[in-house]
Amino acid sequence: MEGFEQFAAIQIEVFYWWCIAIMLQIHAGFLTLEVGISRVKNVLATALKNIMTLAVVLPAFYFVGWWIYNAFPDGLIPRMSEAALAALPWSENMGPNITDHASGVFWGAFALFAATTASILSGVLIERVRLSGFLILADILGSVIWNLAASWGWHGEGWFLTQFGYHDVAAAGVIHAIAGFFALGVVINLGPRIGKYTGDGKIVNILPHNLPSTLLGLMLIYVGFFGFLGGCIIAVTNGEWMTIYGNPTNLSAFVFNALMGLAGGLIGAYLGSKGEPFWVASGGLAGVISVGSGLDLYHPALAFVIAVIGGLMCPFIGNFLERKGIDDPVGAITVHGFIGIWSVLAVGIFASGYPNINGPEISFIGQLVCAAVVILLGFLPGYWTSLLLKKLNMLRIPKQAEMLGIDLTEIPATAFPEGIPSTQENGRLKMIMSKSKTS
Amino acid sequence: MEGFEQFAAIQIEVFYWWCIAIMLQIHAGFLTLEVGISRVKNVLATALKNIMTLAVVLPAFYFVGWWIYNAFPDGLIPRMSEAALAALPWSENMGPNITDHASGVFWGAFALFAATTASILSGVLIERVRLSGFLILADILGSVIWNLAASWGWHGEGWFLTQFGYHDVAAAGVIHAIAGFFALGVVINLGPRIGKYTGDGKIVNILPHNLPSTLLGLMLIYVGFFGFLGGCIIAVTNGEWMTIYGNPTNLSAFVFNALMGLAGGLIGAYLGSKGEPFWVASGGLAGVISVGSGLDLYHPALAFVIAVIGGLMCPFIGNFLERKGIDDPVGAITVHGFIGIWSVLAVGIFASGYPNINGPEISFIGQLVCAAVVILLGFLPGYWTSLLLKKLNMLRIPKQAEMLGIDLTEIPATAFPEGIPSTQENGRLKMIMSKSKTS
Amino acid sequence: MEGFEQFAAIQIEVFYWWCIAIMLQIHAGFLTLEVGISRVKNVLATALKNIMTLAVVLPAFYFVGWWIYNAFPDGLIPRMSEAALAALPWSENMGPNITDHASGVFWGAFALFAATTASILSGVLIERVRLSGFLILADILGSVIWNLAASWGWHGEGWFLTQFGYHDVAAAGVIHAIAGFFALGVVINLGPRIGKYTGDGKIVNILPHNLPSTLLGLMLIYVGFFGFLGGCIIAVTNGEWMTIYGNPTNLSAFVFNALMGLAGGLIGAYLGSKGEPFWVASGGLAGVISVGSGLDLYHPALAFVIAVIGGLMCPFIGNFLERKGIDDPVGAITVHGFIGIWSVLAVGIFASGYPNINGPEISFIGQLVCAAVVILLGFLPGYWTSLLLKKLNMLRIPKQAEMLGIDLTEIPATAFPEGIPSTQENGRLKMIMSKSKTS
Repeated sequence: MEGFEQFAAIQIEVFYWWCIAIMLQIHAGFLTLEVGISRVKNVLATALKNIMTLAVVLPAFYFVGWWIYNAFPDGLIPRMSEAALAALPWSENMGPNITDHASGVFWGAFALFAATTASILSGVLIERVRLSGFLILADILGSVIWNLAASWGWHGEGWFLTQFGYHDVAAAGVIHAIAGFFALGVVINLGPRIGKYTGDGKIVNILPHNLPSTLLGLMLIYVGFFGFLGGCIIAVTNGEWMTIYGNPTNLSAFVFNALMGLAGGLIGAYLGSKGEPFWVASGGLAGVISVGSGLDLYHPALAFVIAVIGGLMCPFIGNFLERKGIDDPVGAITVHGFIGIWSVLAVGIFASGYPNINGPEISFIGQLVCAAVVILLGFLPGYWTSLLLKKLNMLRIPKQAEMLGIDLTEIPATAFPEGIPSTQENGRLKMIMSKSKTS
Repeated sequence: MEGFEQFAAIQIEVFYWWCIAIMLQIHAGFLTLEVGISRVKNVLATALKNIMTLAVVLPAFYFVGWWIYNAFPDGLIPRMSEAALAALPWSENMGPNITDHASGVFWGAFALFAATTASILSGVLIERVRLSGFLILADILGSVIWNLAASWGWHGEGWFLTQFGYHDVAAAGVIHAIAGFFALGVVINLGPRIGKYTGDGKIVNILPHNLPSTLLGLMLIYVGFFGFLGGCIIAVTNGEWMTIYGNPTNLSAFVFNALMGLAGGLIGAYLGSKGEPFWVASGGLAGVISVGSGLDLYHPALAFVIAVIGGLMCPFIGNFLERKGIDDPVGAITVHGFIGIWSVLAVGIFASGYPNINGPEISFIGQLVCAAVVILLGFLPGYWTSLLLKKLNMLRIPKQAEMLGIDLTEIPATAFPEGIPSTQENGRLKMIMSKSKTS
Repeated sequence: MEGFEQFAAIQIEVFYWWCIAIMLQIHAGFLTLEVGISRVKNVLATALKNIMTLAVVLPAFYFVGWWIYNAFPDGLIPRMSEAALAALPWSENMGPNITDHASGVFWGAFALFAATTASILSGVLIERVRLSGFLILADILGSVIWNLAASWGWHGEGWFLTQFGYHDVAAAGVIHAIAGFFALGVVINLGPRIGKYTGDGKIVNILPHNLPSTLLGLMLIYVGFFGFLGGCIIAVTNGEWMTIYGNPTNLSAFVFNALMGLAGGLIGAYLGSKGEPFWVASGGLAGVISVGSGLDLYHPALAFVIAVIGGLMCPFIGNFLERKGIDDPVGAITVHGFIGIWSVLAVGIFASGYPNINGPEISFIGQLVCAAVVILLGFLPGYWTSLLLKKLNMLRIPKQAEMLGIDLTEIPATAFPEGIPSTQENGRLKMIMSKSKTS
């Protein structure tokens, strides 16, 4: 059977290879989404930030982040376990190694999770953040903070699991909520875009310059989400799937609930926003995130309902935050932060009592406590680090640059030098147009 | 060998998982395609319709559609077979079930087929259909009609196969043609866009507002088509591929003919349209559809020829329909409806006599009879249900709303609030531009 | 174990199936990239060229290209080996064959490599090449030239390997550099776009009309690159991966170095271009290409450094070529041509002495000699065939057509008939905007 075991190992490698490729599409999607949301004067600065997120997060995750994930399941004291030692950049597992079919692809999938986490932050800060300040925050979030969260709550021996029976199979808490609340902490120090609120506190709706681009971006993220979800399940060479908590599950369960969650979130957001396209399409993500923590457990009809609720809440949470002075152009604090927490709590409500292999059974209290820790672990470092950057004058671009547009002041290029003038038609086309058979 | 059988099962799960993800890209593609085809005043209404298609079709397919597919291979009387009972939403197979690695992913792949079917309809109706009316039609097509067609003609025991030896391996008839002729039925009741024909019956060419967007959309669909084609082949744990009719085949056959079909369709449409970009790019789809019914059977050079013919016919069929008063802005009735029928008939012409495992051999008469049933099964419900919606005033938006644009009257958002003004260049860029070394 | 061997065979088929699908996304990416780079007056001509590349290269690769790859490992004298005979279009392996799970998917993956090679050429020639002339060149490059290069340097028995120990695992030399230097040969005869240089030789910066589109295109190519890289590794049913040279390797190695190469290239190009978005995003490709030849060998930290160097060089090489009168609007001669050579040489510098299974060990001299052959094999046919086309007046569109725009003169359609006017907001939106709670 040696040939079979070996073959199984390379097939598992293939599975994560495609997870990585498809997750890269999330970044194409975020770029398209955020470019659409930006005003014309800032589109290149926005896009450059999305591209450079990959540039800084992937190496930082290689040198530091993977080790943090593997070393901190106990809390804030690192373990020097075999897994942690193998995650250090000078380990023989952290490079080409023909006897190791796992480390590279697992590292790669987690590296893309890190990049996604940082990209969730990126949209919140557009149109006024300094690129340098953002990249520092992206690295802290992508290579330190979410890694701690994942080590605690998304690891077979993490203390969330062993102490509280935490269940968050597709990382709605330890990726989405962490990123959302980190972003909330940052945006408090960053402040709203100039013109977002009038002098007497009235809200001004700053419109996306190209909403169809934003909608395409969200659609590309739907595709990419299947890479993300694939990275949330562990294949074993004996022919079983398990969750990151060691419970048996399978992709069929994921399919049912991901698709029903997608649909439910769209419907909920449609109802909640009265058909506002941005919220509707964002509701698709919110739906998948809503059911993410219990993707392995729900009946699909229940997943649909949980997702409808998640989607429905989005516009209300988004408007509430906006009224409180939180200027989040892409709604990520809502869709990833608050809905991520909804997802974690929903498991406590609807799957309480479900047994875990390596810890106490799922409980509402356990989910609630861990959700609170996730909120703090996201928010506080986001707040503190951005406060420090603010004091160092590294957080926000100068006021005049913001008024003129970041592209004009910071980017050595121009987005639409011709505008999009109406193009002319040629002779052959005119002939087609003037054809005149009676119908 | 138990470990191997189990491992094989999860690998099959993985294959369909990626089929589902890649098929989602078809929807990103349709959105991009249709947004490009719309005039600026309707782009958001068009996009919202594409997004909401997923929202309504996926749950309807869960609650009803999958059961219909499994229950009606005999015609209009449902069987209560084991497979049909397992497809009911309260069955233990229709949710997370760690002993069932098949139901979820098969359901998911078929759910995406359903969504694709509904999306084929969507483009035909843009710029004048009510969202509510469209979504009802999408659910009828996606969760009842094509399911019947598939149960009859794309099922190992369907009466098309057992009675007529029907062969339609990649669903050119039971998905593409069904959707195309359903759309034809609807568009007769819906009528052309205001301004499409002058008072004296002359055709006016209503131009896509962003043709490059449409071309990108078609390219994204080419990618997504490989998810669709993957969903048309069955992997067996003993290490064989078979068609949905139980005949042995493999992905290598699919690759040869899909790629040669793509190329042939492009060339045919280029020749037929004298290089009109929309028809050329649509011809790529038409090429793959042309060879879809016999994807497992043709020599690649023959597939190329069949696809050239399919692509070549497209502009002529499209123009013919236009002259007959059929206003199909995206050409879907042509590309999916008529070319889907061409595909079914081509198998009868070029592969007549080929044996089936579970029915009589392939014959031209068998393909012809089944093609006729497909046309009626698509057209009649499309016509009747849209007629009913028309009488209920639920089919078409008010005339004034259509004149002003659906976005302005129905959508609480605006697509391009700034237009795309020409952006300015900054100082550094001007320096780059004024560099002046002699070449 | 027969069931297992058989199952392994179909899993390998699945792997290349997805490689093919994901590689198609490279073409969606190139279209989006090149459309963005074009001026508005030429966008449809540019896009049509990308679409028709698939149309002409895939069949030519079927009829000729695959045979060339298999027949010429010895140089310019074809072998009539079993593999070469099996690649002839009338062979029973070159079509549906239920006993052959390999030929179709290998052919398909190579056919997409061929199309990618031709697409690298395509961007260089935009805004002034004739479609017919381009398609001839695309076929020569995609079905003859790179196939020879691959037969020599990317084949288990190629003379580059057996004589010089050539190592170029992800085809940075035999695909990217070949295409880049072929393009250089062509562009010398084609000449720069009108207006690119003033009468006294000053450089004019012709700006991309839609730079965000270009950046999305590059992001889509990043995703597609994982299909390309997947096609560069061979899976064996005994459960091993090997390079095309027969050396053991695995996908984990590829993941480490592809992601670190991507990040390094972005950082290098950011530094080298002072943050110019086009170069930064192109630098991501340049980074992956920089480490492509040794993707199986490098430590990830070394890959990162090699990619930083590759990315850093890009803007300087691009500007150097521009000063020499080479008008390459998409930078492909730089990113694919010169960086492809850098990749080949880097293996000679950093992995010299590494043993090969089927030839002498890797050496700097061997890499250098083969790099020189690659440059000549790309450049000379590009130069000669384009010179011939030029003499036949088939290379460049007439001057007046170029001034007016190719779309107006050659394409029976118009890209943006409405321009992108500012869209209006409706009443509900105004209400949202005027909401005025104090924050």
